[in-house]
Amino acid sequence: MQVFQQLGEHDYEKVVFCNDNDSGLRAIIAIHDTTLGPALGGVRMLPYATEAEALEDVLRLSRGMTYKAAISGVDLGGGKSVIIGDARTGKNPALLRAMGRFVNTMAGEYIAGQDIGTNSHDMAVIRGATRHVACVNESAGGAGDPSRTTAYGVSCGIRAVLKATNGSDSIGGRHIVVQGLGNVGYALAKFCHEAGARLTVSEIYQPLAKKAASELGAEVVDADAIYDVECDVFSPNSIGGVINDDTIARLRCKAVAGGANNILAEPRHGDELMQRGIVYAPDYLVNSGGLIRCQEEVFGRPTEDFTIYSKVTQIFDQTLQVIALAEELGISTAAAADWMAEERIAGAG
Amino acid sequence: MQVFQQLGEHDYEKVVFCNDNDSGLRAIIAIHDTTLGPALGGVRMLPYATEAEALEDVLRLSRGMTYKAAISGVDLGGGKSVIIGDARTGKNPALLRAMGRFVNTMAGEYIAGQDIGTNSHDMAVIRGATRHVACVNESAGGAGDPSRTTAYGVSCGIRAVLKATNGSDSIGGRHIVVQGLGNVGYALAKFCHEAGARLTVSEIYQPLAKKAASELGAEVVDADAIYDVECDVFSPNSIGGVINDDTIARLRCKAVAGGANNILAEPRHGDELMQRGIVYAPDYLVNSGGLIRCQEEVFGRPTEDFTIYSKVTQIFDQTLQVIALAEELGISTAAAADWMAEERIAGAG
Repeated sequence: MQVFQQLGEHDYEKVVFCNDNDSGLRAIIAIHDTTLGPALGGVRMLPYATEAEALEDVLRLSRGMTYKAAISGVDLGGGKSVIIGDARTGKNPALLRAMGRFVNTMAGEYIAGQDIGTNSHDMAVIRGATRHVACVNESAGGAGDPSRTTAYGVSCGIRAVLKATNGSDSIGGRHIVVQGLGNVGYALAKFCHEAGARLTVSEIYQPLAKKAASELGAEVVDADAIYDVECDVFSPNSIGGVINDDTIARLRCKAVAGGANNILAEPRHGDELMQRGIVYAPDYLVNSGGLIRCQEEVFGRPTEDFTIYSKVTQIFDQTLQVIALAEELGISTAAAADWMAEERIAGAG
Repeated sequence: MQVFQQLGEHDYEKVVFCNDNDSGLRAIIAIHDTTLGPALGGVRMLPYATEAEALEDVLRLSRGMTYKAAISGVDLGGGKSVIIGDARTGKNPALLRAMGRFVNTMAGEYIAGQDIGTNSHDMAVIRGATRHVACVNESAGGAGDPSRTTAYGVSCGIRAVLKATNGSDSIGGRHIVVQGLGNVGYALAKFCHEAGARLTVSEIYQPLAKKAASELGAEVVDADAIYDVECDVFSPNSIGGVINDDTIARLRCKAVAGGANNILAEPRHGDELMQRGIVYAPDYLVNSGGLIRCQEEVFGRPTEDFTIYSKVTQIFDQTLQVIALAEELGISTAAAADWMAEERIAGAG
């Protein structure tokens, strides 16, 4: 495991290995870039098989947060943390408080949020040890779970790609395919249903799939069959890497816009989507609604829904700008988004 | 390179990998224990061949600082940092300022000081980016180079082992062997000379050896011959690990007390010295004078020599207490010092 080689390659600022023998906490906090502000990023808890795997994940994710904040106009930097352990069996208040103490010794450079394996109640425990935390549950006075805000942001991205492909941003009557019905995916599907869309969904957890069928009138297909559905927008909202060498030729959608992170297996798949005439809304822009909500909490501004949602709505305009820049430069929308994010950081640095 | 395994084994708090592509800085900051206070430790700059080697060094040294502070009654924790690079060719203000910025984002948990490859002028540069720095040069208002204070502390350790072996703590007329005439070693040799000791010295850098011969009337011997000299006190003041399987049977001294770090190659060599009837003054206690001086600077207290030296003089009593505890428990003085240091931390925790 060569740490500095990885840090140097993408200009990371620092990575902190945190150890607390008393609680058994082993965590890594990565700070990619703080040019735009303190680095906000979720605390992910997963039973990583190796330290190298945990380090790779936290580095990749923290860098993604830098780009997400930059493209969304959020005044925050990019950071992330991972706790090595099983959230179902290994999470307890002592461990979370120890994590909070480590966050508290980052001089405000890192702000913890929820992620896979942690929730807004955990953030309230962490807040007992540090004020540098976001996404605290609403009953404890925080902005709460940002999933629904993220889903709303994805719907803005969907409207943008509809506008680019059909000339109208109306979701009504369009066929939207939603992959994954987790917190973000289900809220998104519900939003599209209420807007009059036709829905096709896939979800491994059957009760959720059945609920979508009965509540939202969604057609449910097998997990693997979802790529073959002819539709207006394919919206991946679960795992990453779903646009890959195996799936890309099967896609029969006009556009891709989803809440999942790292939708493209490799950057070149962004070019391939362009060559196939499929409009791709960059994932880290489209799923930045939750971050926008957290920003308001971090800066102590009102977190009323109407205030937040009016800011998140800008994802619609920003996605159209990315699409326009990509056309102008003859590059993929993924590359155009990177370009815009890097330009904002360079201008602020 | 397994980071967490090393952290867990000796209960380290954290280790921070710091990267700055602009200046080329690659540094590791290790925090072993902050129970007694913020972790003070030098910034060492060396061209480590591998990251693993740099990590091993910074971890070992930061833990040593915890014990040094604990045994000396200093209200500081144990930390250390290493910059990977050649101090002669790779050190410049931009790199030092970058280091200062990283120190500044440790929330006061780490206080930088000078070490191999850095000096009190470098600390003044670092202070341009953070107030968490000690050993700033005197012309910039700091406590300056702590080497002479360290040397004075070593002389207190020498007096203590003389008292334990001869019944009198007088250096006058005793035969002191000084290995290494660096900043600490030369100042110590001069002090012993002025106190009327007979001196035998070894030093690889010939001009310094000649200076000691003419100025201090010291007998100069070859580097390897130093172990065979019959004397009252053998005082290692250069590299670590000089009491090892090769040298221990050759020693013809009554006691060992020196300013070098990690004088014993292995903990078991402390037991072997005891079995051979040689009184060993624990290195991290005896060489804590510089840390005591830095503490006064850190806490903003007067750094007049007479104030500092009266505190450093306590090394004499503390060394005698360690020797007494070792006798009482039937363990080596090295083990007794660890015991006292750990007891102080446990009592404060």
